[in-house]
Amino acid sequence: MSFPNGFRLETDGFGEIKVPADKYWGAQTQRSYENFKIGGPRERMPEPVVKAFGVLKKSAAIVNEEFGILDAGISKLIQQAADEVIEGKLNEHFPLVVFQTGSGTQSNMNANEVISNRAIELKGGIMGSKEIHPNNHCNMAQSSNDTFPTVMHIAAVTEITHHLIPKMTELKDALANKSKEFEHIVKIGRTHLQDATPLTLGQEFSGYVQQLINGIARIEHSLINLKFLAQGGTAVGTGLNTKIGFAERIAEQVSKETGIEFKTAPNKFEALAAHDAIVESSGALNTVACSLFKIAQDIRYLGSGPRCGYGELSLPENEPGSSIMPGKVNPTQNEAMTQVCVQVMGNNAAITFAGASGQFELNVFKPVMISNLLSSIRLLGDACHSFTIHCVEGIQANEDKINKLLHESLMLVTALNPKIGYDSATKVAKNAHKKGITLKESALELGVLTEDEFDEWVVPEKMLGPS
Amino acid sequence: MSFPNGFRLETDGFGEIKVPADKYWGAQTQRSYENFKIGGPRERMPEPVVKAFGVLKKSAAIVNEEFGILDAGISKLIQQAADEVIEGKLNEHFPLVVFQTGSGTQSNMNANEVISNRAIELKGGIMGSKEIHPNNHCNMAQSSNDTFPTVMHIAAVTEITHHLIPKMTELKDALANKSKEFEHIVKIGRTHLQDATPLTLGQEFSGYVQQLINGIARIEHSLINLKFLAQGGTAVGTGLNTKIGFAERIAEQVSKETGIEFKTAPNKFEALAAHDAIVESSGALNTVACSLFKIAQDIRYLGSGPRCGYGELSLPENEPGSSIMPGKVNPTQNEAMTQVCVQVMGNNAAITFAGASGQFELNVFKPVMISNLLSSIRLLGDACHSFTIHCVEGIQANEDKINKLLHESLMLVTALNPKIGYDSATKVAKNAHKKGITLKESALELGVLTEDEFDEWVVPEKMLGPS
Amino acid sequence: MSFPNGFRLETDGFGEIKVPADKYWGAQTQRSYENFKIGGPRERMPEPVVKAFGVLKKSAAIVNEEFGILDAGISKLIQQAADEVIEGKLNEHFPLVVFQTGSGTQSNMNANEVISNRAIELKGGIMGSKEIHPNNHCNMAQSSNDTFPTVMHIAAVTEITHHLIPKMTELKDALANKSKEFEHIVKIGRTHLQDATPLTLGQEFSGYVQQLINGIARIEHSLINLKFLAQGGTAVGTGLNTKIGFAERIAEQVSKETGIEFKTAPNKFEALAAHDAIVESSGALNTVACSLFKIAQDIRYLGSGPRCGYGELSLPENEPGSSIMPGKVNPTQNEAMTQVCVQVMGNNAAITFAGASGQFELNVFKPVMISNLLSSIRLLGDACHSFTIHCVEGIQANEDKINKLLHESLMLVTALNPKIGYDSATKVAKNAHKKGITLKESALELGVLTEDEFDEWVVPEKMLGPS
Amino acid sequence: MSFPNGFRLETDGFGEIKVPADKYWGAQTQRSYENFKIGGPRERMPEPVVKAFGVLKKSAAIVNEEFGILDAGISKLIQQAADEVIEGKLNEHFPLVVFQTGSGTQSNMNANEVISNRAIELKGGIMGSKEIHPNNHCNMAQSSNDTFPTVMHIAAVTEITHHLIPKMTELKDALANKSKEFEHIVKIGRTHLQDATPLTLGQEFSGYVQQLINGIARIEHSLINLKFLAQGGTAVGTGLNTKIGFAERIAEQVSKETGIEFKTAPNKFEALAAHDAIVESSGALNTVACSLFKIAQDIRYLGSGPRCGYGELSLPENEPGSSIMPGKVNPTQNEAMTQVCVQVMGNNAAITFAGASGQFELNVFKPVMISNLLSSIRLLGDACHSFTIHCVEGIQANEDKINKLLHESLMLVTALNPKIGYDSATKVAKNAHKKGITLKESALELGVLTEDEFDEWVVPEKMLGPS
Repeated sequence: MSFPNGFRLETDGFGEIKVPADKYWGAQTQRSYENFKIGGPRERMPEPVVKAFGVLKKSAAIVNEEFGILDAGISKLIQQAADEVIEGKLNEHFPLVVFQTGSGTQSNMNANEVISNRAIELKGGIMGSKEIHPNNHCNMAQSSNDTFPTVMHIAAVTEITHHLIPKMTELKDALANKSKEFEHIVKIGRTHLQDATPLTLGQEFSGYVQQLINGIARIEHSLINLKFLAQGGTAVGTGLNTKIGFAERIAEQVSKETGIEFKTAPNKFEALAAHDAIVESSGALNTVACSLFKIAQDIRYLGSGPRCGYGELSLPENEPGSSIMPGKVNPTQNEAMTQVCVQVMGNNAAITFAGASGQFELNVFKPVMISNLLSSIRLLGDACHSFTIHCVEGIQANEDKINKLLHESLMLVTALNPKIGYDSATKVAKNAHKKGITLKESALELGVLTEDEFDEWVVPEKMLGPS
Repeated sequence: MSFPNGFRLETDGFGEIKVPADKYWGAQTQRSYENFKIGGPRERMPEPVVKAFGVLKKSAAIVNEEFGILDAGISKLIQQAADEVIEGKLNEHFPLVVFQTGSGTQSNMNANEVISNRAIELKGGIMGSKEIHPNNHCNMAQSSNDTFPTVMHIAAVTEITHHLIPKMTELKDALANKSKEFEHIVKIGRTHLQDATPLTLGQEFSGYVQQLINGIARIEHSLINLKFLAQGGTAVGTGLNTKIGFAERIAEQVSKETGIEFKTAPNKFEALAAHDAIVESSGALNTVACSLFKIAQDIRYLGSGPRCGYGELSLPENEPGSSIMPGKVNPTQNEAMTQVCVQVMGNNAAITFAGASGQFELNVFKPVMISNLLSSIRLLGDACHSFTIHCVEGIQANEDKINKLLHESLMLVTALNPKIGYDSATKVAKNAHKKGITLKESALELGVLTEDEFDEWVVPEKMLGPS
Repeated sequence: MSFPNGFRLETDGFGEIKVPADKYWGAQTQRSYENFKIGGPRERMPEPVVKAFGVLKKSAAIVNEEFGILDAGISKLIQQAADEVIEGKLNEHFPLVVFQTGSGTQSNMNANEVISNRAIELKGGIMGSKEIHPNNHCNMAQSSNDTFPTVMHIAAVTEITHHLIPKMTELKDALANKSKEFEHIVKIGRTHLQDATPLTLGQEFSGYVQQLINGIARIEHSLINLKFLAQGGTAVGTGLNTKIGFAERIAEQVSKETGIEFKTAPNKFEALAAHDAIVESSGALNTVACSLFKIAQDIRYLGSGPRCGYGELSLPENEPGSSIMPGKVNPTQNEAMTQVCVQVMGNNAAITFAGASGQFELNVFKPVMISNLLSSIRLLGDACHSFTIHCVEGIQANEDKINKLLHESLMLVTALNPKIGYDSATKVAKNAHKKGITLKESALELGVLTEDEFDEWVVPEKMLGPS
Repeated sequence: MSFPNGFRLETDGFGEIKVPADKYWGAQTQRSYENFKIGGPRERMPEPVVKAFGVLKKSAAIVNEEFGILDAGISKLIQQAADEVIEGKLNEHFPLVVFQTGSGTQSNMNANEVISNRAIELKGGIMGSKEIHPNNHCNMAQSSNDTFPTVMHIAAVTEITHHLIPKMTELKDALANKSKEFEHIVKIGRTHLQDATPLTLGQEFSGYVQQLINGIARIEHSLINLKFLAQGGTAVGTGLNTKIGFAERIAEQVSKETGIEFKTAPNKFEALAAHDAIVESSGALNTVACSLFKIAQDIRYLGSGPRCGYGELSLPENEPGSSIMPGKVNPTQNEAMTQVCVQVMGNNAAITFAGASGQFELNVFKPVMISNLLSSIRLLGDACHSFTIHCVEGIQANEDKINKLLHESLMLVTALNPKIGYDSATKVAKNAHKKGITLKESALELGVLTEDEFDEWVVPEKMLGPS
């Protein structure tokens, strides 16, 4: 390992080790950095986890000060350093990857080391001196085994609340606007991909809106269990080395810092050894991925063409499709969305297997679980936003094409049953299909009704609901 | 196709076809039977779906009679035949497999045909005569596209309510009893599979209880969306060919028949074209599978041995392990349970991809989705019951072994920190580890305390909670 | 438990137990039957496993007789009874479900008990007397831990060889015939679901053929590892209690019985403790499921319509779609096929997690692994056959529609680039798109070429390959 | 969008757009960068894909020059710029994310734009001038639809060949060394987690070695199909706009550049529209993940303790476990490895769903498929290396503990069957189990043999193979 900007010596139970002079991290971070060269920058512990560590370490300093076990001056400096972590100013000092100790111990120590060294620096001390100690002060009354599940939940809840749900809501609203805009457009329905009875384009989009409404509710419901924090369980869930009330106070303080109401988990053994709340949340995201896959898939097929596809919708053209074919709009936002959806499904499979694999007092798949969950949250939120502004908002209905298909369809013959009888109607339809003519042409050719009668009786607009 | 018991001719739009003389089904069932030879009896449409068709067809007859569109006499006969379907008396007349039309059309027609022919028989008519008509009477105001999603939900809700939740509750109670029974037994904790600070065996089991409590709540929550019925949407969701109020009345009547409160779906387009509620429910089952995998895995490791494993628990011996090794109890119930769990995870993957693959006004993966969901429900329920009565209820704690391990452990040294100082405690632990002796032996050898002091200070019972 | 046809007493290490008088099974089967009420007849150990047990037990009797450790008379009777198992005559005597002991011990004992009692009966003895002993004679030199993995492999190889590969080959040939039949039909290509440059319908189908060719090769390759047998490893892989050469002779004898060349596994520890060969094979099936999903999906979209879809293909009509809409052919075989594909993907997920979960000398997910693998094999084979005879062989190209779409397409303008220049060609295309007219109409309107020139230069047939 | 270092104007079919002055990319890259804000730097197109684009664009320039359609001077400049891409010097100029157009069109254009602008710069021209044109020169005779699948295969094959297989081989060798080192250590076997007959620790590790040998072979086999290149298929697989022989020459040239033998795909329609080769390869990686999960899981359980677990192995201590418990070595490398394995399983699920979802002439899940595949390759390779050097090579057998467990075990009684009879042996075992004494103590207490006899007859070393 080379140190282009110089190094200093840090120590831990294993002795001395060189760390980069311009980084706040200490010995344990450095060892993990060297011992787990698995993946690269893409596999680093996600930033929302780092930020959540800032929130937690700040809260712990406040609470420990309250309990009278942490000096007020040290507490202030820890809080100040933790605030910088929350603000993302120290992200470059969190170099560790997901594929490390399964309890996230080393990322917990990374947070402790960075905050303690930064606090020392703020105070004018010497980094590595441990005058503000990573373990004794920053990790006071905590264990990796309860801090990491706590930051998992803080990070997931924060990202869902501030990112995913707003973006899904935005998409839901955009689809609802389109549903309203298209409420007058009657079109052919398709079941089994075959022409069926009509509906309005607005009705079709209303199904998508309902999917989003339900999806938002699903994800919000999964927040209930995610808002329970493991903090206070320490090493095995008993809470050894914490004060009575510590767990509850931490939950309150984290709530205050984040503006979101967290509670202490009712059973800390479950909170350390299982991560069912993560699996549950991923299941909700997986369901949303199914919804979005269906919606994006429908829309790209409805926009297929321009001449040789369904052609009922025009999607916004955001980038050159081909330099020679005007109207060739590739449904690229739909492609991005459906790719995100399969990624979320894959993430869910990883989370499932990991979630089942806890052992005794600890599940040691914590980093890979939260990494996949945060990936799903981020990608779905981003994709919803991109799909909204670059696709849904600009969708236009090709009313001419929609109307043409509707009236070419043979199934409107259904409307004639009560007028000319089932058998005659069947003949009209079969004749039209055989000769490739319209229903009206067929009916007139067979002489079963007049043009006026046809126009009066065959009215798709009357086939849109119960009677 | 041979007909050992003779045949009769039935007809549909395609013309005549031979069906077995001793079966109630008609032409469309027979065609499907011949056209979809995919899998065998194991792949037949699950019985809860058949039963739910009985419930639905009975309800439809009642409601149609109320609406004045179905003759009361015919309605009564249909209801009588449908009751026999509900009671399971006609199961052998439902031969179709899951891998058929993706809308379940042919199973809907199977129900219509069986009920109409049985109703004709009850009336003394001739089977196949269609005097009580499978389409006109049994399928009145319905479409496969709304009946099949309706029976999917009825079947899932019924099985969850009457089978899965009671069995999970039984397991939860059995684990809670054990947690109570074991609350006095202090044992070594294990994190990263390494010896850690102590907890009680009761605390360890309390984590499992919490997992079950949460799991039951997860599944109950998924019932909310499953209780919305698609009936009334007919072919594409518009409700064409139904009367206003039909959808609501069906939901009421199904509630009455089943004793469970169902409601009509707020958006029928969503209810036909997507099956997000099934994916959501499967996600809850998948989460429960993760919980049960962890619990069953823990218990079998804690029962490993008898001499060369953890040996903290004795599991009931239900069948010969080996004729020569007394005490060799294979944890077979745990093995069955964990196998069930991986099956549920697999089912969830199938349901996910199927759920994402709806097209326009219809998802045509309905049979495979409900088949996998009902499989997960049934297997989890059965496995919970079997695991409860054949394993959990008979678990015994090997207190001697637990106590021996606890006191051999080196981490109790933690309790000495405040007494003899961290450095001395470390020496005690290191010396014990190096020489393979107990902590007490090491401490006495090093002369850092007396035997009385050790016995007073090193008390695992004081390490079980916050202070 | 009731015994409508009476009972007899059978014994094992646990003592006496009642078994049905008309069944060959013994005490251990009965105990498992009572202790594992998980699922029902659908979850029974698959028949190919039962059959493979017949093959194995027969082979073991022959080899043990050769080694001089089994009496020739007893061997003959065992072989005779085992032949009946192979022929499927005794299927009803194998009632155990998949979700049992994870080593399949109880199904191994089921085979031993049935064969010994049937052999006793053949000899005129009293069932339950154990004069031909389930353990001492039928299970001689064997352990569940090596027999069950052996029958897993025999069953999988047999089903793949005799069922799946022939059915996939049939489908490949049918697609190749269509590719040949359609080689002259030029059609529009579609990328991103958007109109693109042309290809022939035969070329399009040739892609499907290639997928099948590759798929067959993938599955055949997975047979290599499946043909290695664990037999001879006994309890932990060492082969304790077997004679030197036993493992090799069993593989030879099984090869003789089945007509397929099996070999003894090079490392028995791997063969008992891991089932990577099953995971590998499932991975090949999963890949084939992806291929078939794509093919079936394409074909149903190309057949969508008849008026409002792509409409390039007509699929065979096998059952009534709707009584009123001629031409409404639901692509039901495609729906069955795609449902099978998602089931196979789900099975693969279950197999994956089970395959990762072996412990020390044994993987105890054997029954659920082979059950899922055989399900995938059976379903894919059946679906290929059904799809071939009920769909692919009857596909017709709607040449008029194909031709119409081709010539309406705007992208043929590409052919004009070298003749009238890129800029003029662009104008032709844009004008056509804007006004909804054909390319030719646009070109003539703009006066950039003559009708004859257009007809000479714009020839899709010249756009089908490299030049 | 802000441009801290200034901007220049670039153009495409949509007109002008600002791009950062210090970046080589052009208009289409910039549009994609702005339109697909999905994920961040972690989601960028993987570097092996960028490198493969360098290889491909260089090869295309060479071949096009040969075919006489590309000016030699331009070709040289393109080759020079492409070499810089291959060397990774231009990575920062490839900012696009995976979740973009599903054909990877925009990454193809990113490569074309960067190479053309860098070539222009090398020549002293003005960036954005297009004197060396991204489409006309860099993309000559190519389409995104064939270039992207080509770079997918080049990247996958290169990473597997140069990274994954060497690292797996390294792990295989390390395990084989341990198997050899441990060949004399007899230990208790464990099946169902219960004590079973003995084997050597070397035999146990030999199973792991076999898994790795098979895993390497599985992955090597998957290279066969990955080595087929789609290049030459252009837009829909026909090869329109390429010269006869172009496809074959590209494959040769890519082989020359990479030192790995690639071939042109036999059917380009399959190569564009399906990515079965990617699914197949992921299936092989998934199987390897199962193997590695099992191995890492076994080793961490065998290393569990130090006092209260199996304790048969000591794993290297790489970082502080706890400051107070010497000997508490957390199996962190195993935890990283098993986390990688579940990630690979999740990636496989994503690839499966994506692989099934091709449409007509194109699969538009290309970026997400290759991203997941490369993630699996990279993570498995890195994890194998880390696991080898930080865990396997340092594993030590705790022979005392192993020996103690072996001799405490009751199942050695099996050896007494032929000496004192089954019944007496049973009594010895049962008595030992009941009283918690050793077999020898029990046998002597019951007086069934002498100490010398026991020592002569009960010899685990004779229980290690067939006789």
